[in-house]
Amino acid sequence: MQIETILSPNLFSQIVNLENKVVVVIDVLRATSTITTILANGATALIPVKKESDAVSYKNKGYLVGGERGGETIEGFDFGNSPFHYKKELVEGKEVVLTTTNGTKIIEMSANAKQVIVGSFLNLDAIVRHLRNLNSDVVLFCAGWQDRVNLEDSLFAGAVASQLIEASFDDSTLLTMDAYNASKSNLFDALKKSNHFQRLASKGVTKDIEYCCQENVFDILPVLRDGKIVLS
Amino acid sequence: MQIETILSPNLFSQIVNLENKVVVVIDVLRATSTITTILANGATALIPVKKESDAVSYKNKGYLVGGERGGETIEGFDFGNSPFHYKKELVEGKEVVLTTTNGTKIIEMSANAKQVIVGSFLNLDAIVRHLRNLNSDVVLFCAGWQDRVNLEDSLFAGAVASQLIEASFDDSTLLTMDAYNASKSNLFDALKKSNHFQRLASKGVTKDIEYCCQENVFDILPVLRDGKIVLS
Repeated sequence: MQIETILSPNLFSQIVNLENKVVVVIDVLRATSTITTILANGATALIPVKKESDAVSYKNKGYLVGGERGGETIEGFDFGNSPFHYKKELVEGKEVVLTTTNGTKIIEMSANAKQVIVGSFLNLDAIVRHLRNLNSDVVLFCAGWQDRVNLEDSLFAGAVASQLIEASFDDSTLLTMDAYNASKSNLFDALKKSNHFQRLASKGVTKDIEYCCQENVFDILPVLRDGKIVLS
Repeated sequence: MQIETILSPNLFSQIVNLENKVVVVIDVLRATSTITTILANGATALIPVKKESDAVSYKNKGYLVGGERGGETIEGFDFGNSPFHYKKELVEGKEVVLTTTNGTKIIEMSANAKQVIVGSFLNLDAIVRHLRNLNSDVVLFCAGWQDRVNLEDSLFAGAVASQLIEASFDDSTLLTMDAYNASKSNLFDALKKSNHFQRLASKGVTKDIEYCCQENVFDILPVLRDGKIVLS
């Protein structure tokens, strides 16, 4: 099993033979953590869309729709990007549409992979167990932020790889493993230094970050199937 | 002082206001380690060129010329890429031309910076001291390998940043600092896991790697001036 980590979408072109690889899409703050929460709370599917206008079309058809721009819930939408918005009583049994910038972009870029799964600290062990059983080559694909490398997604890549020690790793993965091992005793503290923390904390969403740093809250495996994310 | 790390040339476009920043070019295995050694051994200047044909032109004018392709010294050239080739008695008082792929590329990309300096573990403390005195924003620019992130250049970026704790760091730099701190007690052992080690070791140049892992052998500061690298 070979594990490669893509630290930013700008490095994605290095991946060869994507069709033979399983991609874990990672946007810890907050898209993939929120998607995992939505499915854990009983939504039947999550439909990721990049453009706000596509989300509006879904809204007009009666779907529940979430998304924010500039840190605010988009006007007329049911939810923002915070995982706390998607309560069980609201999403259970429903298909939910979510528009995010970085997260949706990497899901689209991964479309030709053998399988696309959605990773977050919230379902870390379920991801690791699945990858170990599958024994396929893996790409840990970090959304980053505006094509920059970010710390939180890198740390999650390191968390996954650190549990698959039987694999071989590319250098990017080795970097993330060292960083995760240095930070795992207190992820939240480690992330306080990160650029994203400083952006989100200034918007008063520290509790979202604390939530997204929790490991293994849900034992579920969200996978992409026909453009929707569903439970495996 | 802000420190940003570019983990691969593919991420260089993220840098803004390059003209106000000092760039440390990093290609530890082996270009920047070899360049540092050449100047430490008394060469008056190092002329980096990307194309083999340009190096041949210099050779025809009587310059000492080094370079290799596919791990072999280019036919007719005086040296390969190994730092051990450039003995004091051969290079002292001379201008030396070196053609390397990754190293020369990032030197050219950095040309508009406020200053370009050449970094390697061999002259780590001299680099750090210079940056601390200058108190300018810094870009640690890793050559990587074929646009991929590599471990050795990342570790060097982390080594520099870890000594400038008064600075603020972007997330890439935070990653490299964690990795360096996990590896600094035995860099050579850490690099044994890296992809580059496996490529070079298969060509029998383990001793080059051991050499390039040594910290603070030379107290010199190579800087780019009018297309040549000279001592500051």
